[in-house]
Amino acid sequence: MRLTDIKELYRKRENFIGTEVTVGGWVRSNRDSKSFGFLVINDGTFFETLQVVYGDGLSNFEEICKINVGAALIVRGTIVETPNAKQPFEMQAAEVTVEGTSAADYPLQKKRHTFEYLRTISHLRPRTNTFQAVFRVRSLIAYAIHSFFMERGFVYVHTPLITGSDCEGAGEMFQVTTLDLNNIPKNGDGEVDFAQDFFGKPTNLTVSGQLNVETYAFAFKNVYTFGPTFRAENSNTTRHAAEFWMIEPEMAFADLKDDMMLAEAMLKYIIRYVLENAPEEMAFFNQFVDKGLLERLKHVVDSDFAHVTYTEAVEILEKHNDAFDYKVSWGCDLQTEHERYLTEEVFKRPVFVTDYPKEIKAFYMKLNEDGRTVAAMDCLVPGIGEIIGGSQREDKLELLEQRMEELNLPKEDYGFYLDLRRYGSVRHAGFGLGFERCVMYLTGMSNIRDVVPFPRTVKNCEL
Amino acid sequence: MRLTDIKELYRKRENFIGTEVTVGGWVRSNRDSKSFGFLVINDGTFFETLQVVYGDGLSNFEEICKINVGAALIVRGTIVETPNAKQPFEMQAAEVTVEGTSAADYPLQKKRHTFEYLRTISHLRPRTNTFQAVFRVRSLIAYAIHSFFMERGFVYVHTPLITGSDCEGAGEMFQVTTLDLNNIPKNGDGEVDFAQDFFGKPTNLTVSGQLNVETYAFAFKNVYTFGPTFRAENSNTTRHAAEFWMIEPEMAFADLKDDMMLAEAMLKYIIRYVLENAPEEMAFFNQFVDKGLLERLKHVVDSDFAHVTYTEAVEILEKHNDAFDYKVSWGCDLQTEHERYLTEEVFKRPVFVTDYPKEIKAFYMKLNEDGRTVAAMDCLVPGIGEIIGGSQREDKLELLEQRMEELNLPKEDYGFYLDLRRYGSVRHAGFGLGFERCVMYLTGMSNIRDVVPFPRTVKNCEL
Repeated sequence: MRLTDIKELYRKRENFIGTEVTVGGWVRSNRDSKSFGFLVINDGTFFETLQVVYGDGLSNFEEICKINVGAALIVRGTIVETPNAKQPFEMQAAEVTVEGTSAADYPLQKKRHTFEYLRTISHLRPRTNTFQAVFRVRSLIAYAIHSFFMERGFVYVHTPLITGSDCEGAGEMFQVTTLDLNNIPKNGDGEVDFAQDFFGKPTNLTVSGQLNVETYAFAFKNVYTFGPTFRAENSNTTRHAAEFWMIEPEMAFADLKDDMMLAEAMLKYIIRYVLENAPEEMAFFNQFVDKGLLERLKHVVDSDFAHVTYTEAVEILEKHNDAFDYKVSWGCDLQTEHERYLTEEVFKRPVFVTDYPKEIKAFYMKLNEDGRTVAAMDCLVPGIGEIIGGSQREDKLELLEQRMEELNLPKEDYGFYLDLRRYGSVRHAGFGLGFERCVMYLTGMSNIRDVVPFPRTVKNCEL
Repeated sequence: MRLTDIKELYRKRENFIGTEVTVGGWVRSNRDSKSFGFLVINDGTFFETLQVVYGDGLSNFEEICKINVGAALIVRGTIVETPNAKQPFEMQAAEVTVEGTSAADYPLQKKRHTFEYLRTISHLRPRTNTFQAVFRVRSLIAYAIHSFFMERGFVYVHTPLITGSDCEGAGEMFQVTTLDLNNIPKNGDGEVDFAQDFFGKPTNLTVSGQLNVETYAFAFKNVYTFGPTFRAENSNTTRHAAEFWMIEPEMAFADLKDDMMLAEAMLKYIIRYVLENAPEEMAFFNQFVDKGLLERLKHVVDSDFAHVTYTEAVEILEKHNDAFDYKVSWGCDLQTEHERYLTEEVFKRPVFVTDYPKEIKAFYMKLNEDGRTVAAMDCLVPGIGEIIGGSQREDKLELLEQRMEELNLPKEDYGFYLDLRRYGSVRHAGFGLGFERCVMYLTGMSNIRDVVPFPRTVKNCEL
């Protein structure tokens, strides 16, 4: 069908004033008086709506007056300027065709609904202002991330979702199986006979693509993965979902400093991209969801991120232990309250905390010369705390094996990973960015369920 | 680290002749004579390699002579033109630093390995010419797809992977569970007590995001999903993987004709993008993997795709039944041999076959006025057969319910899908493109295991 997007009407307004166009969209509101009426139409291409004026000259005037919210229409008419109205222009309808009616029990009548209620109708909520904005911005962020890495020559690698190993052993995992759960086959020892399973062994859903993507960094130098990851954690919070997307770049011939430069450049790129490409949505969030959002994001773009070691950060935080629920001392993991204090109160801008105690970080992180800390970094941002976690990786075979022995990790499960240290090992580094956390950060939305189209959480897997 | 990419040396050669640069990369070969030697280095940024000449003036000359294939080096030196050599320029080394040695048993010595052998070392194979080319092109195709849709204002939707419904009921599904398989809890009726499972009910890995993404087309008009999908089919062929990626666009206010225009434009866009951005890789495939590839792809870009109805196609094919293993008659599904005959012999270009019998297509496809065919389309391309399958969707509530009843689909499982037909239903259409099949088509690679970084197939889930 030859339809004009409402986005085009707004962005190239001067081309359309005085001309006739045809628009297809859904009714947001309809009010009529005796001889004319006003339809407000959204077509999904743009945050703003089109007002359509219709008069009793139309043959189906009576029908139009009765059109319910949510109905789909095709309207043909002339675009005219409306210098004294709220909206810059409107359409004077020559023809209004009903594409699909909307039943009287349409759940999205013109009133405010709670986010909680809207979660129960995840197939309809993208038709509301807030979720139009959230999911358009989500899409733009995804594209900004791809563009950022492709412009820099990174190779996008699809790491596997079904995996036979548990990677960094982080969190509970979902099992994947084709065995009949009502009748699990057992072997001679009375244990599950995985030989009969699809892959011939136990398999899980991945919690991270990092170890896999490292193998590709050793072939392409700069790579990234961007795909779904899973955690079967039984935690019902506003920040945890069982299924979420993650971005994990990995660079060969790179150290922790390069890693931080990449993370800073990426965050600034994403924010700039969204501010440029979704100004209406961002203004909406700033006004209705999170006052101060725009100022905070612009401040991030304009700041040089600060740097502080974990040891220095602990010294700073210890002086304010009175203010914290969890008291800080060297060796402890930093909590969100500490992270936010550092970035919001101490540095007043994003800050990288580096060189954490090896005990609280993953086995693959590069041991520093002090023998007690590793070349890890967390990027903390105002309003949220940690948004990115990364590290330089241990590239020395002996040190990596030693660390794995300390942690009782079975070497035979990591043969491919150790091979990387046998054949042309290089210093390398990477990080992980939780995509949903990034979307929450950029939109100001405070519940992860409201930035995932169809969220999966404990006891919840609808649609 | 400040390193120069080999890609830059090639693409901006004139800037570098006579200047000193530092490059990091992996050794592809090393041959030395008495007083000098030649290293061939690949750094993963470019398909071509850099030749490095080193002489006995270097303090570590002896060490360099012994460097094994696969080692990681950092080389500093001057770029000089080599008008009489195979390669356009080389580096005269001032310094060669060993970043990481390569053990003597490095599996990728300078000889040809079979694809089959390379599948057993999926963590190392991207370091070979063929797989460097495959996985760089895979990355470029992914980006071309995102760019194509974003340029047209489509919204990218992440449809869920864990699902409580089986969508179109296609193929066998993987179950997802956190129940202890050694000790499955049972309820009073002796059946699996899914109330104790993570989501409180049986869940599977998705086979398609289409039904979910349709709900977003009714909010944003034009949307697409691009993510992993899963089939637990026990078929050990060169074309099936248990985990693969799929692209599924969906357009509201669009019919089958719009759908075919989109599919044709997308395929041409992807091919053009890859030919432009990976000319070296594509020339390599054409020479070593699939002679005739470039000609075939260029022909696709230059052709107007043909159109034929299923009924017409069957009439054409019936005349050649002698040549087919499976004989054709109205009502049968077309096999690859028929599809290839149509596109390669009859039309000699890509062709859309439309309006298939409703019995061989999915329940959601729009019934044509004849009452026996549906508004479906398959896009067939020379060399492969079907590459895209799509349809206009049934947008009339009564007709959709009627078809679901015929097929005994439980309406209560599709409440959200039926809601779309209750509240502002519009004509709409979409299609599915198997990403791996697309990569195979553009590279000429003939086994799906060779276009997936870490393939998952029956009894195979390594790394």
